[in-house]
Amino acid sequence: MSINMKVKSNSQHQNSHFENRGRLLVKCPDKPGIVSVLSAFLHTHNSNIIESSQYSSDPVNGTFFIRIAYHCEGLVGKCAQMEKDFEQIAAVHNMEYSFNYLRERTRSAIFVSKEPHCLMELLWEWQNGDLDTDIVVVISNHEDARPFVEALGIPYYYIPANKEIRKQVEAEQVRLMEQYKIDLLILARYMQILTPEFVEHFENRIINIHHSFLPAFIGAGPYERAYERGVKLIGATSHYVTNNLDEGPIIEQDVERVDHRDDVVQLKKIGRTIERRVLTKAVKWHLENRVIVEGNKTIVFH
Amino acid sequence: MSINMKVKSNSQHQNSHFENRGRLLVKCPDKPGIVSVLSAFLHTHNSNIIESSQYSSDPVNGTFFIRIAYHCEGLVGKCAQMEKDFEQIAAVHNMEYSFNYLRERTRSAIFVSKEPHCLMELLWEWQNGDLDTDIVVVISNHEDARPFVEALGIPYYYIPANKEIRKQVEAEQVRLMEQYKIDLLILARYMQILTPEFVEHFENRIINIHHSFLPAFIGAGPYERAYERGVKLIGATSHYVTNNLDEGPIIEQDVERVDHRDDVVQLKKIGRTIERRVLTKAVKWHLENRVIVEGNKTIVFH
Amino acid sequence: MSINMKVKSNSQHQNSHFENRGRLLVKCPDKPGIVSVLSAFLHTHNSNIIESSQYSSDPVNGTFFIRIAYHCEGLVGKCAQMEKDFEQIAAVHNMEYSFNYLRERTRSAIFVSKEPHCLMELLWEWQNGDLDTDIVVVISNHEDARPFVEALGIPYYYIPANKEIRKQVEAEQVRLMEQYKIDLLILARYMQILTPEFVEHFENRIINIHHSFLPAFIGAGPYERAYERGVKLIGATSHYVTNNLDEGPIIEQDVERVDHRDDVVQLKKIGRTIERRVLTKAVKWHLENRVIVEGNKTIVFH
Amino acid sequence: MSINMKVKSNSQHQNSHFENRGRLLVKCPDKPGIVSVLSAFLHTHNSNIIESSQYSSDPVNGTFFIRIAYHCEGLVGKCAQMEKDFEQIAAVHNMEYSFNYLRERTRSAIFVSKEPHCLMELLWEWQNGDLDTDIVVVISNHEDARPFVEALGIPYYYIPANKEIRKQVEAEQVRLMEQYKIDLLILARYMQILTPEFVEHFENRIINIHHSFLPAFIGAGPYERAYERGVKLIGATSHYVTNNLDEGPIIEQDVERVDHRDDVVQLKKIGRTIERRVLTKAVKWHLENRVIVEGNKTIVFH
Repeated sequence: MSINMKVKSNSQHQNSHFENRGRLLVKCPDKPGIVSVLSAFLHTHNSNIIESSQYSSDPVNGTFFIRIAYHCEGLVGKCAQMEKDFEQIAAVHNMEYSFNYLRERTRSAIFVSKEPHCLMELLWEWQNGDLDTDIVVVISNHEDARPFVEALGIPYYYIPANKEIRKQVEAEQVRLMEQYKIDLLILARYMQILTPEFVEHFENRIINIHHSFLPAFIGAGPYERAYERGVKLIGATSHYVTNNLDEGPIIEQDVERVDHRDDVVQLKKIGRTIERRVLTKAVKWHLENRVIVEGNKTIVFH
Repeated sequence: MSINMKVKSNSQHQNSHFENRGRLLVKCPDKPGIVSVLSAFLHTHNSNIIESSQYSSDPVNGTFFIRIAYHCEGLVGKCAQMEKDFEQIAAVHNMEYSFNYLRERTRSAIFVSKEPHCLMELLWEWQNGDLDTDIVVVISNHEDARPFVEALGIPYYYIPANKEIRKQVEAEQVRLMEQYKIDLLILARYMQILTPEFVEHFENRIINIHHSFLPAFIGAGPYERAYERGVKLIGATSHYVTNNLDEGPIIEQDVERVDHRDDVVQLKKIGRTIERRVLTKAVKWHLENRVIVEGNKTIVFH
Repeated sequence: MSINMKVKSNSQHQNSHFENRGRLLVKCPDKPGIVSVLSAFLHTHNSNIIESSQYSSDPVNGTFFIRIAYHCEGLVGKCAQMEKDFEQIAAVHNMEYSFNYLRERTRSAIFVSKEPHCLMELLWEWQNGDLDTDIVVVISNHEDARPFVEALGIPYYYIPANKEIRKQVEAEQVRLMEQYKIDLLILARYMQILTPEFVEHFENRIINIHHSFLPAFIGAGPYERAYERGVKLIGATSHYVTNNLDEGPIIEQDVERVDHRDDVVQLKKIGRTIERRVLTKAVKWHLENRVIVEGNKTIVFH
Repeated sequence: MSINMKVKSNSQHQNSHFENRGRLLVKCPDKPGIVSVLSAFLHTHNSNIIESSQYSSDPVNGTFFIRIAYHCEGLVGKCAQMEKDFEQIAAVHNMEYSFNYLRERTRSAIFVSKEPHCLMELLWEWQNGDLDTDIVVVISNHEDARPFVEALGIPYYYIPANKEIRKQVEAEQVRLMEQYKIDLLILARYMQILTPEFVEHFENRIINIHHSFLPAFIGAGPYERAYERGVKLIGATSHYVTNNLDEGPIIEQDVERVDHRDDVVQLKKIGRTIERRVLTKAVKWHLENRVIVEGNKTIVFH
């Protein structure tokens, strides 16, 4: 039996639209003329700017950030030369940068524990063709989600995990990440702490959903503590994982209203709907190269 | 010159509508039949229930809370007897309770420091007749708001304040509270810490606005810290003041979306609009006897 | 293969909690003492009021509405007598009323066309045990959703539909509604118009989701028209179906922000997330007997 | 007596920050290289791009819109030459465009009828220095707001208005608009219809607040009709005035939740808070040259 009724074939994504689209991200010291240099470069390479967003951390001696989405006929054949030509510009202006091509689909892994709601939402968006990534593997310390994941044709690995066996668990996880050539790791309510070694493997490439409106209720049991404190809104936060627990750069947050009648069970139910949409938004924006990490904060170009 | 264009005369509020309206708040151990007892009591005293809200902390051995708004022709003449008759019921069922009459307008004082936006919003709502209280005095450790307050006919007291002179400042404030027979003290961005002695004078009768989404950013400089942390929403919290700083029972909270372009100045601007509406809502609900404090939490009957 | 990983067994719902819970809805001319009568009645029958909400359309000569949730040990054995005893009270006070028992699960049918997002959301909530109904049949004029529905063990009927064959289609649908003893019919983006005869069969028992913020964009193509008009928010509306197209009593509405960059395809994507949550909320509230229809409006006791 | 406690002196706004800032708005047929041309032009004239937002109505044969905010030392002395130099570029690329200078403050008039809440909010923001305009005159068909407006040092004209005398009323209004050199006319709940002749005088320069979520409840009595329809959210819409009543390009909209307990009076109260913030946002964005009208829609660069 197949339940893949909504899976759009990848071929749909590999059409000319995606073939000829790129996104250039640049970070450099701010000074007059940067936009001019970049737009002249793209124009010279027959690229039409479709979308452009910029931010300067400070008008004086600040850092300049820009995201340019462009269209270029025959991009596949031209991009190597473009990247080579860009090296000189980057050197002159002291730029950090990345060229991203829509035809090169990001490869994502999802880690999940018992609660499947975030995983389900991601799969749902992906089935709809609304998540521009290939979800190539799901790893869990529980068996619960296996049937659903496998029904979609995605490999599912059950790796039991706890404090004692963390190192060997992570070794196995890293091996799978490499085997599946993972670009992005999504923690969709994965309730195990990752070691610094693991996190370093994937700097700014692990997105987590924390079940509170950070920095309120850092750590365990946020809904229980929200209940104890009697807050009138509860929230969720999606952030890149760093080695400071729940302190990584925030990508997106949202809240919902609650009241005195909502017990912890009810808070968790409401929380699930927030977690689903917050994580999904953060992942989407990451995939669209809309998120730039700067220090412990993010610039998100909507 | 008078600018009181919108001040509704009090006589308008002292009409028969208000004369005959009361609100009964009851808290007691939950058991079957409480609603029946209360509604029979009111019916016996020719009172018609207009609005009734209840909450039980737990179906088994919980605490029961109810707010009943009722209409009673000739309430002024009857209420003494009603209250007397109720004593026996309260004793039998181990009730804490309060009778509140709309004709007896709450008398409020507002404390404010330099930033006037919360004060202004409260005065604006009051001018519109949307805040069922008499604002009888404003006290500030700055002179800034005097012209506006006095133009509305409200006495304004300038009492400089700082750590060193806190005791004598508070003595003067308490004296004024007594002189003006204050029921409710609203801290509309009053940036001085109150001593435990002062707070005890006004248990559950001081409402503060904190300029963050508590418990995030307890203490000073919340907008600065929100900026540092890179949050994507900022908030405000209105709560009763206790002797644990920013830890009192929360009445209302709200948030607004911000992004990486918003510096601290901009966060404060956005924050002011949140603070205005959150404090005003909390004060309104308090005045309508919609808020019951239970431990360190509130029950708010909307 | 089974993917029913999250289906909670019904036995869980048929525990003592549900056995002993009831909800009484009453509508009658407002006059003093109604609450007293009802609460005395319940107390006499050893029922403890858990939740009570009321509304009066007008303090003078208005209509009174109340929803009382109660707990009664041994309710199954007592409810017949309770209902019988209530008849006299209802006659005296001219009451319309209904007794609802949590052990008697509502039986729901879902109609869907091509777009599965609302269906999926309902099934998801139901799997989580968050929708207190038995979804006993899904009917569609397309085959798309079959695999997913059948994988959950729910019968799926494909009944092609169009204007020309409407009568025979509806005859078949009515037959299935009767066969499956349907209490509630949910139109989860079912894109066929129902005849007055069909609607009359299920007065106030058909809930539809309309893909606009009614009464804006009544009729076909709401997202196209929202785009043309250049609105800055789009919405969705859940309502009971009447024979005036898109004019039935509104249960719930919500909106999301959009901007000039959102084309019709994007509006539809955003719209789907609104539709999902609005329909699900409306259905939940209906199942919890929180919705009373009065004329062309609803009273929703949150 | 003066109550101008919060009025920031204009001198504060005429500092070097404002002296050297400009905003260039351009609309032209989309084709590759436009951004390059514009950024090279600005760079050549020693201008640093601070903020840039663009939109293309369609990747193929679409219309391109861009808003560029820039800083240029000594702008006052250079802008004439810049504008002259730009003429040739504009001609080549078939551009419509406007140069806007922050030192040239927009001059605004406010029209108001009886309800002062929108006027008050605008004055409040203006007093705070948060509205980059000079409010130079207020005109009303009622006397109510006079004391407050005059207390702020703004001339107030009382011009009674009704259908019969519309032409002479508008003649007087136009005369004042010219006398005060008005750039922007804000209708802050001005309840008179303007003639086509009047509207033509101020194309895309009259901003109105309509007290509904357009296109729902076009015309008179929107709150009354919202109540009748039983909607669960009410809204407000700010738009440019055209000669099709309530059909002009929408700048901003927002909503608030209401329920069955809210009568028309209550809806109006809630509505006032929406109207205040929606109008103020629209005016701010207009003043910051963030709004471009295209056909009957707006592009708003946030």
